[in-house]
Amino acid sequence: MTTFTYDALPGRVVFGFGAVAELPAEIDAFDAQRILLIAGASELELARALCAPFADRIMTTFSGIRPHVPIEVADSAREAAADADLLLCVGGGSTTGTAKAVALTTGLPIIAVPTTYAGSEVTPVWGLTQGSRKTTGTNSVVLPRTVIYDPDLTLTLPASLSVASGLNAMAHCVEAFWAPRRNPVSSAVAADGIRHLAAGLPAIAADPGDGTARADLLLGAYLAGSAFAVAGSGLHHKICHVLGGAFDLPHAETHAIVLPYVLALNAPNAPEAASRIASALGHENPVQGLHELGTKLGVPEGLRALGLSESDPETVIDDILALAPADNPTPVTRDGLKNLLRAAWAGTAPTREEAA
Amino acid sequence: MTTFTYDALPGRVVFGFGAVAELPAEIDAFDAQRILLIAGASELELARALCAPFADRIMTTFSGIRPHVPIEVADSAREAAADADLLLCVGGGSTTGTAKAVALTTGLPIIAVPTTYAGSEVTPVWGLTQGSRKTTGTNSVVLPRTVIYDPDLTLTLPASLSVASGLNAMAHCVEAFWAPRRNPVSSAVAADGIRHLAAGLPAIAADPGDGTARADLLLGAYLAGSAFAVAGSGLHHKICHVLGGAFDLPHAETHAIVLPYVLALNAPNAPEAASRIASALGHENPVQGLHELGTKLGVPEGLRALGLSESDPETVIDDILALAPADNPTPVTRDGLKNLLRAAWAGTAPTREEAA
Repeated sequence: MTTFTYDALPGRVVFGFGAVAELPAEIDAFDAQRILLIAGASELELARALCAPFADRIMTTFSGIRPHVPIEVADSAREAAADADLLLCVGGGSTTGTAKAVALTTGLPIIAVPTTYAGSEVTPVWGLTQGSRKTTGTNSVVLPRTVIYDPDLTLTLPASLSVASGLNAMAHCVEAFWAPRRNPVSSAVAADGIRHLAAGLPAIAADPGDGTARADLLLGAYLAGSAFAVAGSGLHHKICHVLGGAFDLPHAETHAIVLPYVLALNAPNAPEAASRIASALGHENPVQGLHELGTKLGVPEGLRALGLSESDPETVIDDILALAPADNPTPVTRDGLKNLLRAAWAGTAPTREEAA
Repeated sequence: MTTFTYDALPGRVVFGFGAVAELPAEIDAFDAQRILLIAGASELELARALCAPFADRIMTTFSGIRPHVPIEVADSAREAAADADLLLCVGGGSTTGTAKAVALTTGLPIIAVPTTYAGSEVTPVWGLTQGSRKTTGTNSVVLPRTVIYDPDLTLTLPASLSVASGLNAMAHCVEAFWAPRRNPVSSAVAADGIRHLAAGLPAIAADPGDGTARADLLLGAYLAGSAFAVAGSGLHHKICHVLGGAFDLPHAETHAIVLPYVLALNAPNAPEAASRIASALGHENPVQGLHELGTKLGVPEGLRALGLSESDPETVIDDILALAPADNPTPVTRDGLKNLLRAAWAGTAPTREEAA
């Protein structure tokens, strides 16, 4: 039985090669006269070039971007925003995150021009760190009003970084099928995201200069961000969050290794999700399809390849169990989780479990 | 190359059997104290029952609904809305349309509880008629803020009316693939709409009391409305608009007859759309799949079955050509249109043209 609640998010997206040419018109649509430009040091030259047609309206430029948006960075950016009427951010997830931190306290609208495959530019999620403690929250005021996606801006992103980002996006798309606020629209968007990521990822690994593949990956990252923004995340992200926190594992690799095993656990009790993921991957077996894609992209074989010892995963089973969503398609048991982690550690080919 | 602009529409949807039980909570979310209830005579009893838990907050009830929202009806409803803080409409397309007419001048928020498969409750399109002249427009202020879809409310809709509405929804989904503001999200939503409509339509024709089929049709109608709201419509709707206006043809039947022929024209030059429509229909040939679905549902065989003479369609070719979108996948020529209309008139099985 189909039952759902769906809170659709507003927002304007302009996507295409050369889409940055629309930036002046999009700025005009806000009638912005005093713009705070937010761009890290490595994007500053690009950002200034993009702003040349309306340079007289750039009031201040803030470039003190640091990962995870430390509160001191947010404070400085907020000071720089005094008297501004628009935030324009050009860069990756940390740059967008800095603009969001400013919007959170000022209510200023954001135009985002992403240069990576982060996807956070279409979510209302913000994050701030104080020392080593990260606080996150959701507020519609931080959702960028306009996002300009131009695949040309991503052509120089290293292949390894692109693949890692794309695999994170893939995890969001797959989890969207059983995430807490899933609905027919987020599932349709996630399925299309998988299709574009599965096309773009191997092509970029083979040739980082492949423009079509860059467009596929950027589109897939946008769709993944949109699906996550609406549906949220589920068991897979809980597992990776606990493992990553406890053993300081690399984010993208951990996600890429674990995802097929979570799909293997859930597929028997989420047959429609499994069939749509399979169809989007172009593989008759979605678990195998995901695993083969990872292998093709050089994802390490099992968590042991990340330096984890065989007994490590078992020590965090309680932490994962405490966070496991009650409505995961396959009920999460201690034994089920133990088997999943053992297989993910060893890197043995994930197999679809029998339906419970 | 993927290039698009997408203006996502906000809005909350609550969908499911028994979803109307959420109505009091949804009303509370607006803190509404003086509600104008809009419901036609045939829905009045249902509407009053739904409002029983907050009857003291229903300030006025307006039930003078008439098709196509005559301006006099809009004026009376607007008068009834004086001092209201929320519009609650329970009914079909004309009832939603009346609430939209009130929102257009008052800016009041709308909660819509649809009882048919109209789909207009998720679009920002309004319409008013003065005498025989219909004026339509688009304004975000008329887009309902919350829509409650409960398939139970549609169980008593006659099968013939349900099938006609479902076929209109199907036309919106298919056209969404080449409509002017198409984008990856509207296409993904439209594909899922086709899937649910193709499942629900024959099942309702066979058994109008089939609850699962009712849910499929209502979900399909919602997705079709969403896709249309974002993407707009294309050649097919122009053809049907001209034919319907010139020869006073029945709306739903005209759409159902013509649609496969427009798909046959466009498929060779929109191969991805054709493949996604085919997959959603569960048929290897999308044109044939759509035609077979129509035949199964008792769609008349050709426009001649609607009383059109063989020479009639040719007299409106110029009118259609004047309206044909310049970016239709297959360029619209006089000969192409003549062939299309001849085949649609005769009801011969539509065949996919060769790519131009």
